[in-house]
Amino acid sequence: MSARPASGNDTAAALRATAHRLDAEDPLRPVRERFTLPEDVVYLDGNSLGALPKAVPDRLARVVAHEWGALGIRSWTESGWWEAPERVGELIAPLVGAGPGQVVVGDSTSVNLFKALVAAVRLAGEGRDEVLVDSSSFPTDGYIAEAAVRLTGHRLVPVLPAEVPGRLGPRTAAVLLNHVDYRTGRLHDLPGLTAAVHEAGAYAVWDLCHSAGALPVGLDAHGVDLAVGCTYKYLNGGPGSPAFLYVRAAHQAAFDSPLPGWNSHAEPFGMRPSYTRAEGATAGRVGTPDILSLLALEAALGVWEGVDLAAVRAKSLALTDFFLECVDRYVPAGSLESVTPAAHEERGSQLALRTPRAAALMPRLIARGVVGDFRPPDILRFGFTPLYVGFADAERAARVLAEELGAGD
Amino acid sequence: MSARPASGNDTAAALRATAHRLDAEDPLRPVRERFTLPEDVVYLDGNSLGALPKAVPDRLARVVAHEWGALGIRSWTESGWWEAPERVGELIAPLVGAGPGQVVVGDSTSVNLFKALVAAVRLAGEGRDEVLVDSSSFPTDGYIAEAAVRLTGHRLVPVLPAEVPGRLGPRTAAVLLNHVDYRTGRLHDLPGLTAAVHEAGAYAVWDLCHSAGALPVGLDAHGVDLAVGCTYKYLNGGPGSPAFLYVRAAHQAAFDSPLPGWNSHAEPFGMRPSYTRAEGATAGRVGTPDILSLLALEAALGVWEGVDLAAVRAKSLALTDFFLECVDRYVPAGSLESVTPAAHEERGSQLALRTPRAAALMPRLIARGVVGDFRPPDILRFGFTPLYVGFADAERAARVLAEELGAGD
Repeated sequence: MSARPASGNDTAAALRATAHRLDAEDPLRPVRERFTLPEDVVYLDGNSLGALPKAVPDRLARVVAHEWGALGIRSWTESGWWEAPERVGELIAPLVGAGPGQVVVGDSTSVNLFKALVAAVRLAGEGRDEVLVDSSSFPTDGYIAEAAVRLTGHRLVPVLPAEVPGRLGPRTAAVLLNHVDYRTGRLHDLPGLTAAVHEAGAYAVWDLCHSAGALPVGLDAHGVDLAVGCTYKYLNGGPGSPAFLYVRAAHQAAFDSPLPGWNSHAEPFGMRPSYTRAEGATAGRVGTPDILSLLALEAALGVWEGVDLAAVRAKSLALTDFFLECVDRYVPAGSLESVTPAAHEERGSQLALRTPRAAALMPRLIARGVVGDFRPPDILRFGFTPLYVGFADAERAARVLAEELGAGD
Repeated sequence: MSARPASGNDTAAALRATAHRLDAEDPLRPVRERFTLPEDVVYLDGNSLGALPKAVPDRLARVVAHEWGALGIRSWTESGWWEAPERVGELIAPLVGAGPGQVVVGDSTSVNLFKALVAAVRLAGEGRDEVLVDSSSFPTDGYIAEAAVRLTGHRLVPVLPAEVPGRLGPRTAAVLLNHVDYRTGRLHDLPGLTAAVHEAGAYAVWDLCHSAGALPVGLDAHGVDLAVGCTYKYLNGGPGSPAFLYVRAAHQAAFDSPLPGWNSHAEPFGMRPSYTRAEGATAGRVGTPDILSLLALEAALGVWEGVDLAAVRAKSLALTDFFLECVDRYVPAGSLESVTPAAHEERGSQLALRTPRAAALMPRLIARGVVGDFRPPDILRFGFTPLYVGFADAERAARVLAEELGAGD
């Protein structure tokens, strides 16, 4: 560590003292003990892959050895495997503001986007031939939307979320939006945009990948029609754990999946030649659920016991505010630009800092134990998972970032 | 156990002696040691859920604790997670007669059927508007085929496999067939039917759920266009483990997936707004792969090391022959009817026995440690996995079946 001017040392000491005070006052601090975190690492990539909940290894070992190894096929009934997609869905439901019977878990986010989008345009019916899709969103949303409208005969209209109200009209069938932009961390106005979509008589499909588990979503309260989300980011389900699909109760009777596999049949073991849709969220199932990943996710969701989402949101904003303050103090002005909105109501739980040196810088941060990620062409991305990231972590990350930028030399 | 007539005892003694001789001579006998089997159980449900390979628990524990818990996001590159769908595909390829670069693992069988069928009709191009689908097959194939043609504008023609040659014509775009019927265990003529499909200028899609790992398939040799298969039956990947998709090398340049998620992009981390398909089998990927299940499957596939598929097929036929012989000897004539063809060239690796008492009988067999399954309305289904089922198992299963049918009372 190089020698610093006295003012730098003072700054660091003050920020560290603040960090320790904030950590001591943090009501979510004990939740960190529910995770196994990499040693001596500040893990700011929970927005990409959540950390390992301590309950997972033992649960998974028992699923493998006892449920699969000893009971074999009997576990489909005796160990509750068959109902796992709905059961795990019910654990996610309160985290996204959904009442019972509307969330089912299975398949990847991309596959669920396809189901949701095709189902949405079918709900909209004839005469509405346009689908608006967020052009700033994660690419897979755009690719899948393009693939879906190619099959349904609709026209894709790429728009920025802010442009949606101006582009809605009698031809709009459905609108696909990301709640939080994966790159910039911008939080979009789910209640307002959903209301605008409804006013135009269209259906709102939300991608919650970067908001589920990071902030209150309020699917039921805001009238969202369909939603999909990832479980391996803020829900800590493990690498590639299955995604979830929300189908609003009011739409379930007319929900018409483009992937009606046998698991969504009203009588799956009847092995009937004709398809009859199951009731409820089950209609969103397709094939045999991936039990190992699904039950790892179920165990992982135990970390939410007693956790208040309002407290999660409050800590998320406090953490990102504090990190920005530390960056502001440690890093020379002009060397980094935050592309995440400063306004709380427009911020998710991650920060995106722009620098032309981003690609080279991130591996150096990782080598020094500050794990974020790089998104082309020039974004350093830092995710702040309130369940296990603390204020001292934020201070350390900002300090290492400043050092690697050369601020302390 | 009730007293038997002397002839019954003689029969049993002779059959047991034969079983012990056949087990002693079985070149695959040592492979059984690679599995953890339920204790004191004859597990004849490997055609539904394969038994637990011994290598899986430790491997999965390490993936969870070290790769996820300690390395976190770094494992996508450092632990080879990103390439797992193709890498595991290469382990399956030789088991289905596929050269390198044509098999990718991910998603459920149903989702892969959708990809394969839509891709097949797109390969067929304009002017061919019919899709033939095996009406005797597993229901999900029919549901998904119906859903696919509804989107592509084709017409579904349900046929029995034997009727396919007579229904092929200039309007046929694609034909979806099951290699082995899930209910009857009948093995269909993949080489002959594929050749007939090609002669009509159409594309052949095969569902290998009940043949992959049970018998040689020869995808490359027989010119199959596209194929899908399950990995949790004879490939022992664990409950709901991801399915595989085969895309013949010659079709890969024109393979046009209806589910082009970011994982199949030529430059997945480029996050580009427009989609450019990756080369090779990777084009069949969709979203983030389910790593826990995928790596459990990878470990499970280790049981195939040094195993010759011709020996597997020979043992499978010998086992099913021997079981039928035991049933024939133990069970009074007329109380059970085998709906699986007697001819070897028409038999998969399972037997289906019909009795009106099937529904009540199977739970009693299971209670006595003979685990098969029931398929409505009147089928007892017994799968013979040559890697871990022996001849003494077959004799015991037939004997218990006879006893429960009341033959020994």
